[in-house]
Amino acid sequence: MVGEIARRSEDFSEWYNELVRRAELADYAPVRGCMVIRPYGYALWEQIQRGLDQRFKETGHRNAYFPLFIPYSFIEKEAEHVRGFSPQLAVVTHGGGEELEEPLVVRPTSEAIIGHLYSKWIKSYRDLPVLINQWCNVVRWEMRPRLFLRTTEFLWQEGHTAHATFEEAEEEARKILDIYAEFAEEEAAIPVIKGRKSESEKFPGALVSYSIEGMMGDRRALQMGTSHNLGQNFARAFNIQYLDRNNQLQYCWTTSWGVSTRFIGAVIMVHGDDQGLILPPRLAPIQAIIVPIYKGDEDGEKSQVLEAVAKVKALLSGSIRVEVDDREGYTPGWKFNEWELRGVPLRIELGPKDVAQEQAVLARRDLPGKEGKRAVPQAALREEAERLLEEIQRSLYKRALEFREAHTHEPKDYEEFKAAVEDGFALAPWCGEAECERAIQEETKATNRCIPLEQEPLSPKARCIRCGRPAKERAVFARAY
Amino acid sequence: MVGEIARRSEDFSEWYNELVRRAELADYAPVRGCMVIRPYGYALWEQIQRGLDQRFKETGHRNAYFPLFIPYSFIEKEAEHVRGFSPQLAVVTHGGGEELEEPLVVRPTSEAIIGHLYSKWIKSYRDLPVLINQWCNVVRWEMRPRLFLRTTEFLWQEGHTAHATFEEAEEEARKILDIYAEFAEEEAAIPVIKGRKSESEKFPGALVSYSIEGMMGDRRALQMGTSHNLGQNFARAFNIQYLDRNNQLQYCWTTSWGVSTRFIGAVIMVHGDDQGLILPPRLAPIQAIIVPIYKGDEDGEKSQVLEAVAKVKALLSGSIRVEVDDREGYTPGWKFNEWELRGVPLRIELGPKDVAQEQAVLARRDLPGKEGKRAVPQAALREEAERLLEEIQRSLYKRALEFREAHTHEPKDYEEFKAAVEDGFALAPWCGEAECERAIQEETKATNRCIPLEQEPLSPKARCIRCGRPAKERAVFARAY
Repeated sequence: MVGEIARRSEDFSEWYNELVRRAELADYAPVRGCMVIRPYGYALWEQIQRGLDQRFKETGHRNAYFPLFIPYSFIEKEAEHVRGFSPQLAVVTHGGGEELEEPLVVRPTSEAIIGHLYSKWIKSYRDLPVLINQWCNVVRWEMRPRLFLRTTEFLWQEGHTAHATFEEAEEEARKILDIYAEFAEEEAAIPVIKGRKSESEKFPGALVSYSIEGMMGDRRALQMGTSHNLGQNFARAFNIQYLDRNNQLQYCWTTSWGVSTRFIGAVIMVHGDDQGLILPPRLAPIQAIIVPIYKGDEDGEKSQVLEAVAKVKALLSGSIRVEVDDREGYTPGWKFNEWELRGVPLRIELGPKDVAQEQAVLARRDLPGKEGKRAVPQAALREEAERLLEEIQRSLYKRALEFREAHTHEPKDYEEFKAAVEDGFALAPWCGEAECERAIQEETKATNRCIPLEQEPLSPKARCIRCGRPAKERAVFARAY
Repeated sequence: MVGEIARRSEDFSEWYNELVRRAELADYAPVRGCMVIRPYGYALWEQIQRGLDQRFKETGHRNAYFPLFIPYSFIEKEAEHVRGFSPQLAVVTHGGGEELEEPLVVRPTSEAIIGHLYSKWIKSYRDLPVLINQWCNVVRWEMRPRLFLRTTEFLWQEGHTAHATFEEAEEEARKILDIYAEFAEEEAAIPVIKGRKSESEKFPGALVSYSIEGMMGDRRALQMGTSHNLGQNFARAFNIQYLDRNNQLQYCWTTSWGVSTRFIGAVIMVHGDDQGLILPPRLAPIQAIIVPIYKGDEDGEKSQVLEAVAKVKALLSGSIRVEVDDREGYTPGWKFNEWELRGVPLRIELGPKDVAQEQAVLARRDLPGKEGKRAVPQAALREEAERLLEEIQRSLYKRALEFREAHTHEPKDYEEFKAAVEDGFALAPWCGEAECERAIQEETKATNRCIPLEQEPLSPKARCIRCGRPAKERAVFARAY
């Protein structure tokens, strides 16, 4: 599997495509637009699941499972929703050998089916809030697929909550946005901008959509998670009502929010380099790989090395996800390349000299060559490996943040704006009109990624970067995935 | 949600149907045959997932994710496979607003799509064995649905492995069967019979199928997990080949194995009683529920009780999955009934008298009334609760085993056989012919559940219980789900 891949600096897109397959993260399936997530990629997804699931549960959410199939008529109940999703639907027309009376949609998202069930389950204010999440597959027909980033079927979690008031729904949507941002920054080492989506970019059927946006290695933006305050739109469409304390029937306020396997694409694109993946230690399925080095078993060299390797593995296993690559028939150099390609944060080399000196050589994936390499006494190995993993985690975040800052601009006029979005993100005042957003996209290929939640108040004299009308707020514009 | 449900002893089937919905484990979905797994039911599934997933990983398996959609032509490649599954398929004919050139099947099981991918991934003996599992949803059109037991969509894990030799595939299939049996007995407290399926009952396309079979509370059998040695059937159909050490091209030997949400049905049917569920402590999402008892807050009664409850919860949280039911507006008696219905193994009652005496009252779900109730000093509570949970676990297993033994018979002739399958399981010598199996089913409604792996050698004179021809082996016959 190891071999040359395209250079990240020369052809980012090709580098990405080749890397995903060469690192055995995922592969195309025989059905157009669908993917197979291979064990190494799925192990990364399991780490993401674990981190998010724990955060959801700590904030009172519980998992459930809703059906894959949704009657077509349900999708039609919320007008914007059906407009947004109908071009992307996969439709089951036959089941059990017969044509169905009503075609079934394979869920593109589950607001409709969950809305229907919430209307049955929720009766009184005592039943609120309902805080449910599900981990599942969804299908949105995709004509230009890219592994992890855009596939017809993908995996995600979708949270769906119901509340008594607007304020509670709004608080929930924002709380989840905070969880997503904290997770992206702390676990994936990816700095993100928390923001509100513009009217044209929001989720079909939402009152307000929020997202976290990250800058990829090619300086394009990727939406890494979204959280929607759905207002009463779905509650009215699906009749989700409750009796309040005064025995009056009220519509609920609902939210929905999701992170998908697309998140894996961000991890690849933010941290990787010409040699392959660089996985942030907290998400890496394998945090440290031990590579034994020996020539043969004259003088018991091989068995001495393997014995020391086993000892070192046992030493680290308690606190680190560590594996040994003791495959026969591959040279240590070949193994080094392979585990670099696969982005394992720490490599531990152990040869006869190290056995003799009771040491091991640690090599950091994020620092090239000698700079990241040092010999460490075996007695201090565990502590040093733990410390290095923390340092790599911090260092990856810092590097990604510096990169984003270096490529984020506050243009003074539209000419500067055009140059800014060629280079990365443009943070610019904007009139708030969809028409202006569209013109910007046509003229520069940049879209309105979000209106950052944290921003300085605008001067009353501030003008829209494109049309010169009074500006409403600052937005981040960028070319995006 | 609490209220009368049908009596288990009077109408087992109705008891089951009502209990699943009243305990909020699952509900029917608007699409015929589909179900929603509600948070309490899903939490039980998460416990099952955790237990199995850990065992799979300890034995070298890794998770992956394969596509939901399978080209129809793939399913047709293995002749028995398509014959077995075609009446149950859901078919997608439209995607992205257009009719598809080739219809797509929503996976009923994934041998076909995985076979296709293994043929791409496996090149050499060095790539073997491939040991992959996936957790996913599958769809098999169901005309007579029952929650958890038979639904059009269900969740499961499906393992798919590829090996160099028949012996390795056989060892894998048997190893997984052992894992399933150990899990069922140790975690779900359900005694099972490990056996081989007869030719007519085996998986479409398998060389040999194994299963674990449990006896439900109505003395019918439930297949709780299956493991198949697929021989080279799928390897030939999908061209899964490898170069052996002598550089010769060989077909792989493959296996597949699965446990589904049906397993939840077994937990309900084996242990439950007239009051509702009884969950085995190791699988119970909530192992102990604390119910505070107070009249009002005169003399600070309520706050004293709630303070003691918080202390007790903190005391237990480290080692036990414990929750507090401090909802307002429900009496303690109502709560007792609700948590009995939901099968929580241990109830902890705490009122003013208990606060004064620094004790709590423990009530076992598996022992009725006073027999299962005792006051325990708070200082000894943690140890006693842990001990009781272990005792309940063992006691549930013992009760289920005694029940199965009491209703398992070794009939001497066909008349006794007929009486035996009216009462439960019949272990009987059998000629091994499909024709005889069919006749038994028509005459008694009992099917051949499995040929137990552990059985005494038959006397050479032994005769088939029905036709009197020489018997090949003993099989378990029973009415089944």
